[in-house]
Amino acid sequence: MSEPSNPAPPPVEAQAEAPASGTAAPAGDGTISKKAAKKAEAKAKKEAEKARRAAEQAAAQAAAAKAAEAEDLARDNYGQETHETKFSDDAIEVSLKNLGEEHVGKKIQLRAWIQNARMQGAKMAFVELREEGTWSIQGVVAASPEGTPVSRLMVKWVGAINPESFVVVEGTIEKPAVPVKSCRVSNYELHITKCFVHAAAPTVLGMTLAAANRPIANFSDEEPPVEQAVEKLSVAETTGTPAATMLTHLDNIVMHKRSYVQQAIADIRAEMKELYRSYLRAHGFKEFEPPCLIGAASEGGANVFRLPYFEKEAFLAQSPQFYKQIEIAGGRKRVYSAGPVFRAENSNTPRHMTEFTGLDLEMEIKKDYHEVLDVLEGVLLHIFRNISERCPDEIALVRSVYPCEEFLLPEPGKKVRLTFAEGQKLLREEGPEEFRNVSDDEDMSTPQEKALGAIIRKKYNTDFYVLDKYPESARPFYAKEDPINPKVTNAYDLFMRGQEICSGGQRIHDPVELEARIRKKGIDPASPGIKEYVDIFRQAGVPAHGGGGIGLDRVVAWYLNLPSVHLAAFYPRTPKRLLP
Amino acid sequence: MSEPSNPAPPPVEAQAEAPASGTAAPAGDGTISKKAAKKAEAKAKKEAEKARRAAEQAAAQAAAAKAAEAEDLARDNYGQETHETKFSDDAIEVSLKNLGEEHVGKKIQLRAWIQNARMQGAKMAFVELREEGTWSIQGVVAASPEGTPVSRLMVKWVGAINPESFVVVEGTIEKPAVPVKSCRVSNYELHITKCFVHAAAPTVLGMTLAAANRPIANFSDEEPPVEQAVEKLSVAETTGTPAATMLTHLDNIVMHKRSYVQQAIADIRAEMKELYRSYLRAHGFKEFEPPCLIGAASEGGANVFRLPYFEKEAFLAQSPQFYKQIEIAGGRKRVYSAGPVFRAENSNTPRHMTEFTGLDLEMEIKKDYHEVLDVLEGVLLHIFRNISERCPDEIALVRSVYPCEEFLLPEPGKKVRLTFAEGQKLLREEGPEEFRNVSDDEDMSTPQEKALGAIIRKKYNTDFYVLDKYPESARPFYAKEDPINPKVTNAYDLFMRGQEICSGGQRIHDPVELEARIRKKGIDPASPGIKEYVDIFRQAGVPAHGGGGIGLDRVVAWYLNLPSVHLAAFYPRTPKRLLP
Repeated sequence: MSEPSNPAPPPVEAQAEAPASGTAAPAGDGTISKKAAKKAEAKAKKEAEKARRAAEQAAAQAAAAKAAEAEDLARDNYGQETHETKFSDDAIEVSLKNLGEEHVGKKIQLRAWIQNARMQGAKMAFVELREEGTWSIQGVVAASPEGTPVSRLMVKWVGAINPESFVVVEGTIEKPAVPVKSCRVSNYELHITKCFVHAAAPTVLGMTLAAANRPIANFSDEEPPVEQAVEKLSVAETTGTPAATMLTHLDNIVMHKRSYVQQAIADIRAEMKELYRSYLRAHGFKEFEPPCLIGAASEGGANVFRLPYFEKEAFLAQSPQFYKQIEIAGGRKRVYSAGPVFRAENSNTPRHMTEFTGLDLEMEIKKDYHEVLDVLEGVLLHIFRNISERCPDEIALVRSVYPCEEFLLPEPGKKVRLTFAEGQKLLREEGPEEFRNVSDDEDMSTPQEKALGAIIRKKYNTDFYVLDKYPESARPFYAKEDPINPKVTNAYDLFMRGQEICSGGQRIHDPVELEARIRKKGIDPASPGIKEYVDIFRQAGVPAHGGGGIGLDRVVAWYLNLPSVHLAAFYPRTPKRLLP
Repeated sequence: MSEPSNPAPPPVEAQAEAPASGTAAPAGDGTISKKAAKKAEAKAKKEAEKARRAAEQAAAQAAAAKAAEAEDLARDNYGQETHETKFSDDAIEVSLKNLGEEHVGKKIQLRAWIQNARMQGAKMAFVELREEGTWSIQGVVAASPEGTPVSRLMVKWVGAINPESFVVVEGTIEKPAVPVKSCRVSNYELHITKCFVHAAAPTVLGMTLAAANRPIANFSDEEPPVEQAVEKLSVAETTGTPAATMLTHLDNIVMHKRSYVQQAIADIRAEMKELYRSYLRAHGFKEFEPPCLIGAASEGGANVFRLPYFEKEAFLAQSPQFYKQIEIAGGRKRVYSAGPVFRAENSNTPRHMTEFTGLDLEMEIKKDYHEVLDVLEGVLLHIFRNISERCPDEIALVRSVYPCEEFLLPEPGKKVRLTFAEGQKLLREEGPEEFRNVSDDEDMSTPQEKALGAIIRKKYNTDFYVLDKYPESARPFYAKEDPINPKVTNAYDLFMRGQEICSGGQRIHDPVELEARIRKKGIDPASPGIKEYVDIFRQAGVPAHGGGGIGLDRVVAWYLNLPSVHLAAFYPRTPKRLLP
């Protein structure tokens, strides 16, 4: 049997040692008067006596502390964890979210972060223990009269653990006299009998959890001017803890991610992605994986990252567009993908990132391109309707930090689809003054989209809707023109709160028609990437097909109405920032 | 009502028209003898008569054809599909895989590729119709005496459709007299009453489906020397159709993907990925998305793609290693990801790609790092055990093209775990001569790994096993050394058929220990990327954790024992090839 590890010594408040001998003050002239000498002697004696007593006292205290430590009957129950630390064999492991009445009176073991620790007098300490996400419980460490399993020293030691240290504790689940408001688990508390620090946090955190839990004060990629920072700080301070900037959050990524709001957003995002996949699988879609490295900047060439690739040049894919079409040409009926796409756009706004996650799908069209729109609306409605059931607590938590209006959906069974021209008409007739003359033949600007979103919300009571039949000029060369009215295309955008989150439509599947439209768009059909693309449709007969690309980051951000899409990303990439 | 579209004219074998008038051959001296003139006259008359008759005949034939076409009572039942083509309202849409007895005698509509068409006399044609994957059915087009719904012209027209054209057909499901061996649906055939070409394939395909279905002859990135190509070709020809090289397959990506074997591999891959995700979700793992663009080449800097990134330089991630650790530091208990990773390695082998899919996971360790190994073995066994139930036909199909030995698994409930040292001992004692002196302190070479795989297969009857406790020298700076024996690490590799498919282990979570090992490895802890990495563990207390990275492409390829990992990828990326 190896020795149990010794707890680190408690922070004993040792008194400063008294000087070893007194010295009399010299007279101003260098000589000493009798009276003064007597006085000095008496004073010296007094001081010597005082020093002796102090030394005695100190020695006694030190001895007592040493003795107390030696006699600390709880010394095996706390300290720094090592690989020799012993835990009870009979302690149950249970996640906080699974705690129930059946655990009351039972001994459990918990691995958690200390999110707060405070002394309550000399004999008791309270610690908030946090598991993954937002689950926390109040831990009570109370010294027992007999000094075991908890001594005063242990209480003092536990009460002094740095917040955000990771600990392993054992204790008994009890019902508190009154519910614990500060913890998510409010009906139980943990009466701690063992507490070991597994990994210590620094004394001073770069950002506290309380600060990380506050709404972010500033999303600029630049350090904010002092004036602005102060202003934002004071606004935030009205609720207690100063808020931090996005830059501070990214510099303290660990605490950023530990914040309740980021944990909740990450959970919501993961569930949305899973809902996307499960819906498409259930509707006969098969997953494929498009490449990121591509040989030609085929979709225009603007805003594309280039890199040296052995003796050649490579590009980072801006979308899986061509590849999902190759899958259809290659004999798949319905495909989807979920992966990174890249835009080398020097846009430093809360709406832009250089790398984001595209949820793409492509499918054969049997009779009408609205079959594709049905699937796109279907999968998004599936996400919206189910996420509020799967993550109600997480959504409520995010809204408590970033308040917003409820995300309105069309009534069950209904959809809101307008043509682009109908949207423009609404904008002209019911929008603000400056949009009185918007044209049906030109794409909308972001402010126009937002204004139309507000009109549609009022008129149709929904934040989710479709604009169909975009003008020919607003769509890329692969978009299929409406055979009846070639001024518009069989293409659409899907919107959330007046912001585009999905673009899609029918593609041209006939190589002759495709080449004609490429020329019409002023592109050389023989240019790199384009030629290979058109040739796909010459290799064999390709059925009519269409699809769409959904921006996952935007869906998460706009559903929650976050102030920046960067908050929805796991590691936001911007022109100015690649770390962490 | 709009006019029904006219079918394209059938390929009438029109005779060449005879010359309008005869000309006599001139005599050598420019004059014409009487005898010769007579002879010429007679000949001219004869020819004129012949021409007249031919012209009459041609006109009669043309008129007959025109009349036949005009009278073709089936003319609305075939031709090029347009948006005005009419189909029956009462035809059922059913996937071939769902065809059953209940459909016999019913009219169905099918959208499919013509994979073969041949005439059987003048009144009947057989076409093989293929849906997604490998599902095909025999279509019969038989002219009815009354000329409707199928005429002789229609039979001729359908029998001449280019293979790999996409068609929409209607017909009645019937039971064939004898099962149709050439189609996957062998118990039913489709008696076609309508057939429209939706998208035509070219007359000559770049690669036929038969060739695409053959095993690939050559995987070199270079065009093979003629000699070798001929040799391979003749081997392949023993079963009928010449095989093509991988380069030909990639140049004809549409037919490559339509091949049965690639459809089956794609299905198996998608299912394996889904099995990976569902297992981890069921075991409490949460999905996250690591970035591809990173700010520092932190994992050594070799074989990393670099690119200009606005005013800076960016790198493409070689693994999500640091990011999954940040997730754990950031308060997640268990995370997984599935996404692209990149290696700028100029290796032109069937084992290497520059972009591939990493299945990564990371988790908190409670007591022992083997908890991680349990999950890694668990998820892979889950994949192997379930894929043979989910995709039995697809696996059988791949094996019919690329035959291989069964992939052996440990008996249910058992696992085969050896230490690295035990593996080396086996290799020394039971391996080939040249491995008699392999050391316990050095990593294995690929031939050594394969030799050990063969020994383990014989000894333990499994193709899936683990080597644990890799030597310290063979593991990166973040690998945790065994606290008892620091010459080895708490790290392991997982193998399939003697080839590594997963590397993992416990990571160092203490910043002091981490920095010491970084120095020991000869790396400057202040270098870019490394400093930020170590700082993660200084930001707050991080629990013990570990994980692993699985190469999906390799899992698919080695499970099926494919001759190249490129066959397992959707779009293989190699140093020489970025297209398509």
